[in-house]
Parts: sequence; C-alpha cells; structure tokens
Amino acid sequence: MLTPELKSELTTILGAEYVCDDMESCISYSYDATPLYQAIPDGIVFPKNTEEIQRILRLAHQHHIPIIGRGSGTNLAADTVPTQGGIVMVMTRLNQIIEIDTDNLTITVQPGVLTQTIHNAVEAKQLFYPPDPSSMKISTIGGNIAEGSGGLRGLKYGTTRDYVLGLEAVLANGEVIRTGGKLYKDVAGYDLTRLLVGSEGTLAIITEATLKLIPLPETRRAMVAHYADLDTAARAVSAIISARIIPCTLEFMDQGTIQVVEDYAQIGLPRDMAAILLIEQDGPHLLVEQDITKLHQICLDSGATHIEVAQTSADGTQLMAARRNALSALARLRPTLILEDITVPRSQIAPMVRSITEISRRYDLTICTFGHAGDGNLHPTILTDARNSEEITRVEKALADMFATAIRLGGTITGEHGVGLAKAPFLEWKVGRTGIVALQGIKNALDPTGILNPGKIFTQVPTEQEGTKK
Amino acid sequence: MLTPELKSELTTILGAEYVCDDMESCISYSYDATPLYQAIPDGIVFPKNTEEIQRILRLAHQHHIPIIGRGSGTNLAADTVPTQGGIVMVMTRLNQIIEIDTDNLTITVQPGVLTQTIHNAVEAKQLFYPPDPSSMKISTIGGNIAEGSGGLRGLKYGTTRDYVLGLEAVLANGEVIRTGGKLYKDVAGYDLTRLLVGSEGTLAIITEATLKLIPLPETRRAMVAHYADLDTAARAVSAIISARIIPCTLEFMDQGTIQVVEDYAQIGLPRDMAAILLIEQDGPHLLVEQDITKLHQICLDSGATHIEVAQTSADGTQLMAARRNALSALARLRPTLILEDITVPRSQIAPMVRSITEISRRYDLTICTFGHAGDGNLHPTILTDARNSEEITRVEKALADMFATAIRLGGTITGEHGVGLAKAPFLEWKVGRTGIVALQGIKNALDPTGILNPGKIFTQVPTEQEGTKK
Repeated sequence: MLTPELKSELTTILGAEYVCDDMESCISYSYDATPLYQAIPDGIVFPKNTEEIQRILRLAHQHHIPIIGRGSGTNLAADTVPTQGGIVMVMTRLNQIIEIDTDNLTITVQPGVLTQTIHNAVEAKQLFYPPDPSSMKISTIGGNIAEGSGGLRGLKYGTTRDYVLGLEAVLANGEVIRTGGKLYKDVAGYDLTRLLVGSEGTLAIITEATLKLIPLPETRRAMVAHYADLDTAARAVSAIISARIIPCTLEFMDQGTIQVVEDYAQIGLPRDMAAILLIEQDGPHLLVEQDITKLHQICLDSGATHIEVAQTSADGTQLMAARRNALSALARLRPTLILEDITVPRSQIAPMVRSITEISRRYDLTICTFGHAGDGNLHPTILTDARNSEEITRVEKALADMFATAIRLGGTITGEHGVGLAKAPFLEWKVGRTGIVALQGIKNALDPTGILNPGKIFTQVPTEQEGTKK
Repeated sequence: MLTPELKSELTTILGAEYVCDDMESCISYSYDATPLYQAIPDGIVFPKNTEEIQRILRLAHQHHIPIIGRGSGTNLAADTVPTQGGIVMVMTRLNQIIEIDTDNLTITVQPGVLTQTIHNAVEAKQLFYPPDPSSMKISTIGGNIAEGSGGLRGLKYGTTRDYVLGLEAVLANGEVIRTGGKLYKDVAGYDLTRLLVGSEGTLAIITEATLKLIPLPETRRAMVAHYADLDTAARAVSAIISARIIPCTLEFMDQGTIQVVEDYAQIGLPRDMAAILLIEQDGPHLLVEQDITKLHQICLDSGATHIEVAQTSADGTQLMAARRNALSALARLRPTLILEDITVPRSQIAPMVRSITEISRRYDLTICTFGHAGDGNLHPTILTDARNSEEITRVEKALADMFATAIRLGGTITGEHGVGLAKAPFLEWKVGRTGIVALQGIKNALDPTGILNPGKIFTQVPTEQEGTKK
C-alpha cells in the first residue's frame, strides 16, 4: 500500500485512474514470467509521457522509494519482481511509433511499443528490424532494450544492442539524458547508449529509442536436418561456419525437446533422433538458393540421417514455428518450467550439451535443451515443480553446475535473458570481483540512492563457486 | 624528467632499456597526429605484458602520476598529448596475434598489433575484419578500440565498436578486468566491453582484445559518379538507400578535394565537377554484379554527368585509393591541416556541406570536404598555418560554427576520431550538462584519482554555445 501522502502526490501527477495500490493490482504486478519469484509492490503507476516519469522519479528520489520499470513482464530473470517493494512503473501507455525515417533507415519509438508491432510496421515499408526474441509477440521494445534481448537471428544480425542508435532516458534524479541519434557513427563521450542497453532498469528509465533498420531480405528458406547423435550435429554446425556460410538462424533441439514439441504440435519431428538442426537463410533469391544447396550438401556430408528443405517461405515459417513453440510445448508437462540461458563459444556446444545431460542425471532432473546453435546460446530447460522444495534444491544445484561449466568453457551465465534477481548470486563468477566493483561503481554514479530496480544484478550474498566446478 | 625514485622503480619493473626521460624522447612523444597540440611528458615507458602494466599503474595510482596510453599516435583529437605531464605508456611491444579461431570466427590480439596486420592475417584465411580507419596501415588496434575508430565501410559493416567481443584491461588501480569473450551474446552485467571501446584511454589500459570476424566477401567492385552540383549528388545518396542497397562504401568528395587529389595523384578526376561519389559494393559475385548494375542506373537517373565502373577488383582498389589519398594530398598545400569529423543524419548531408561552404566564406578559410556520405560522417578539412595566430582564431570560430550546425541538424561533434583534448570544450553541446555529469560519474567510479589520460574528454572551461548557432 502507498502512504496517503505519496498516493496523493502520485495522483496529482498521473490522475487517480493511473495510480493503483489495491491488493488485486499489487498481486498482478508481483511477478513476471520467471518462476519461483514473487514480491508485492506498494503500488503501480502508468505514466503517459517523459514529463510524468521525471516527476515520479523526483518524488521517488526524494523519498528513497524503489522504482521498478516494466513493460509486458516477459523477462525470465525476475527483473521486474519488486523484491524491495516500491512502485512498479508500467510503460505500456507510452506505445507510439513516433517516426519511421526511410531516408536514414531508422524507427523512433516509445518504450511500450510491442516488438512485433515494430516488425510489422517496418516490413510494410520493405525494411527490417532483425532482433526477434521468442516473446516478441507480447514483449515491449523498452523491455527488449532494458534486457539487451537476443533472439533466433543473433548469429547473422546481432541482438537488440546492435540496433539501438539513440535513447532518451530519465535518470534516478529525474533529469533527462539523450544519447546518440540517427547516427551510425558517434564517439562523443563514453557509449551511454550501449551502457543503458542491458542495464535492466537499474540505471535509468528509457522513454524513447531510435533503432537502426536495414533493407528487408528478399526471401527466406528453411530446412531441417536430423541427427542420430549429438556430436554429428555439432560437427555440422562447425562445418557450416567453416564453409563461410552464416545462416540467419541455426537452431538446435535435443531429443527431449523434439519429443515434447512433437506431442504438442504434431508436425512430424523425429522422436528417435538425438538432435535436429533447424536452419534458415535469408537474403536475395539467388543467394538463398545457392546457400540452401550448399547447406543441404554440408548436412548430408556431416551425417544427417534425413534432411527436409521447405519449398516455400511459408513452409519455412511453419518449420521454424516448431522451434518457436518449444517453450509452450515444454510448459505443459510439469507445473514449473525453468528456462536457462547459458552461452558458450560455438565450438563448445557439444561439450556443454553433454555436460547438461550429465548434470540432469546427477540431480535426477528432466532437462530439455534447445537454443541458438549458431551463436552458442543454449536454453537448457528444467521441468520441475515449485511446490516440491526437495526437488527445487536439486534444481538450484544443477543450475549452479551449469553456470560453472559454461564459464569453464569460456561462456557466460546469460546470453540474452539478463541477470536480474535470479542470476545476481552468480554474476561474480563471470565478471570477477574486480568486475563487480566496476559495475557497482557505475551503478552508484548514476543512481546514488539506489532507487532504480534495487536488488537486481547485484547481490549481498554471492554464491560460493567452490565445489560446483565439475 | 622523471624523479630519480620513480625512474628507479620503473626501471626495476621494465629494465633500463624501456624507460626514457631524455629530452629527445620526451619531445618525440609530446605530440600526435593532431596539429596545434603539444606537451612534454615526464617520461616514456614501453611495457611488454599485462603484469608490467599492472605494476606501473599501481605505482602511478599511489603517486598520482598521469598515465597516457599510446599506440602509433595517429589520432586526430590530441588524445595522446600528455597535457598534464606524466608517463606516456607506449603499447607497441604488445604486438602479438594470440589466436585466430576459425571455429568461432574470432581473432585475439594484443593492443600493439597494426590494424592492417589483422586484415592481412585474417584475409589469408578467407575471413574479414571490416573496420578500416584511413590510418589502418600504421594505426594499432588498441588505438582503434580506445578511439572507437570508424572507416570507409561503416555504413554496411559498422565500426570497431561492433567487432569487439571481449577485452582484457588494467584499471587505474592496477587490477585486471576481463569482459565478454568469444560470445555473440552476453548480457551478464552492464556492457563494459563497449564502455571501454571509445573511452580514449581515460577508463582503463586495454591489454588484449577478442574481435569478431565474418566471412571474406567473394569479390568487390567500385564505381565513380560525377555531379555538377551538390544537391544532385546528395539526392543520389538518398536514392541508393531508398532502393534498399547498402554499398560497402559510399564516399563523397567536394570540388576542392577533387582538385587537390587530382594534382597529387593524377588519376583523371574531374576538376570541374562540384562533387563525386565513390561507390563500392562487395559480396558474392552474382550479387555484386546485380547491385553495380542497379547503382549505375540510379546514378544515371539522379543526374550524374559521368559514371565509370571499375572492370576489375584491382581497378576498384585504385579508384578507392583516390579517396584514401585525400588526406595526404591535402596535407601538401599549407603548413597545417585540420581534419574535422562531424557526423549528421545521412539526409542532412547537403545542408551540412552547404553550411560548411558558407562558414568557409564567413571566415575566409580554405575548407575541403570529403567523407563517408553513406553514414553522414564528413571530414571538412581546413588548410591553414599554425604560425598565423590571427588565422587560427578564425579557424577556431569556424570549427565552433561547424559543430553547432552539425548538432542543430541532429548530428554529433565527432563520428570516429574521438573527443580528446581538441573537442573537450564542445562535448557538452552534444551530450548536455546532464550527460557530462553522467560521464564524469563513470570516470570517477573507474579512475577515482584521475590518473588515466587526464584532461581528455572533459574540460574545466566548456565553450559557450550562444552566438555560435547560425
């Protein structure tokens, strides 16, 4: 509940309609897409413009009230769970596309615009915004920017980070900064744009973004290749890159995932196979044909037992839908699904997947693994039950072992989902003590009173790494 | 001169051979490629590894001695001029390519490796490191990273920033941080990698970098188009982008530059033309042919008076050499050449170039303009004489007017050269007071005693903006 004074001040700024602190609303904003995490906020606000956000932040800064920025709440690291109470600031009313600039190939948007809405708007003008997080139908661009979201096309096109040219943001003290612009080159000062991308709401509230667009590829074609064992599939990935082909997507699914997706979608996936690769190439017609022919040959040479090439771009979309449905399919099996997000150098995919299999046996857990083989970003997904505390203890041990293995293989604890609350205890494993001190210094410089999304990224109690490296 | 105690301590770390404070050496490291700036350091050190750099920084941190990291000194913002004395740390002995990883498409290098050496090494393996700053034959990769260097291929391929995947760096207190890795996706903590790229030696000393590579394009073709007036050339640039073609280079030269380059290189450039566009496309054979045909038609339709397409890739290299020679050609004309680096949104190139012409008349100066039309990054180049203080006063006014115009058009004061000493008084025009406070907060967090390249980026005396916006 908000204090009457605070509620009155917020109501003056926003109007009564856009300030809530009833229990139903507070419960609705007490969680996000991350299982196992929940905390009740004091209230929720729905600002409609930068000026309102400035006024709210000045108030919060003055009274040391936590502010948790939130779009659609699709994140998977408990980044929008108000773990220290405070006010959840929902950005969905800032939902305008401000401009599509076809001369400069940019789109300028408010943070509450849905990612899919951006795709549709620019594709109508034969332009392309490549980042495609799996949640893009419901995620907001502000959330994508705050999390540094990736997607299936990261290998060829990069991630959200690579498409943000400029930002307007409100700092903790209520002041507005503007970074970058419609500029492909700008080295005036440190790269604040990219510092804010992936800062998970802990450094500023993003209120506007200018994104880079590229020409829409003429066409796309997809194919699927079946593998009887994991190493053969991993060798195929290496062989594709060695042939100097960069597909727009190069996705991997293990046997567990194949079986579950096939149960759910019934699209003819091979239940008896150890792994499948879903490969898609886009670009000019001529080139896509050429690459698909080469990819077919490489998959054949690398020992695929079956290869199917989509005959049309629509068939391809259906094929790729298998991958995009993986999460929904897996979610049906058990009450709780924990979707992990480790990344390793591409050459380390086979050792990483083997290690995940070992870990699932060690802790007697069901772990299905799928992900972006092209960029080494794997999503081992643990099917469990939050109500079974004994099992959850095993899950936590398994996660720690996975993170330790990823780091030992030259990887990271999160490729595209963020650190949030869920991985804060493990951040030091990746960046080291010196890195934590540097990151905290930046946090303190920009948010000295610590009101922006407190408790996220950093933890008071880092998890000990000893004994977990296997 | 170094104090005897400091010299003795440095000699213990490095050996006598790699510590200098004789006047000849101090003068040699008192300037870089930027005219009008010079300052004598107390001494120069040549470390050979990270450990030596850590020991030097601990010493400097303890005694509050400025440390100025330096590669080849090709920068154009006086970034390596030791304006507050101290020790110039020359990185050229860290000159090893540590690994080219063809599975993960990365190269790991020490900072003293020349940019051209990286190009040659990876192209031998049919791989490609796209950033191509004009100084690449002599610049070091460490300098490129510190400055966030661009180049001719920025429009299609991005700049240095887009290719740095991981860094090892020594902080002001002597501690080592490692960021990123052989990872295309990594959102574990704020993006320290990109914070260090373009930080101009003010946040850390970079000791190792892992860079992203892509497949080497099969071929490249170049063409040149002549224009009798500026607007026609600018419209051609817009028409190319509207046709959804992104050439790998799209360079612009004004009449002044054309005449000077032709005097120097005698390659048949048209002295009577208002502007030329130098266009190059790379990629698969089929596609390059297709694009060059389309580009030819677009240039014709947009009113080019003459178009010449290079018949071979070697002819194209010669054509592009005209652009790469521009600076050397211009440098012959008068004692001092001031190469500016403003960037505007691509659609604002014609207004910007017109404004530069007006500014040159207003202050009775010779300004030749060339640059990267594709990404809006222009290099207006003032031919002057540093010994003529009256003329230099006019030059300074002209620069201030150019920066104000660029910002008014949505641009920036530096696209690829950096802020350094030269543009520190103007940084606030771009980022605002709130931006300066944020940047200084980050600087203070990472370098609390201010020993790393002091006096750079920030200034005690910002230039007043009033009266300069015309």
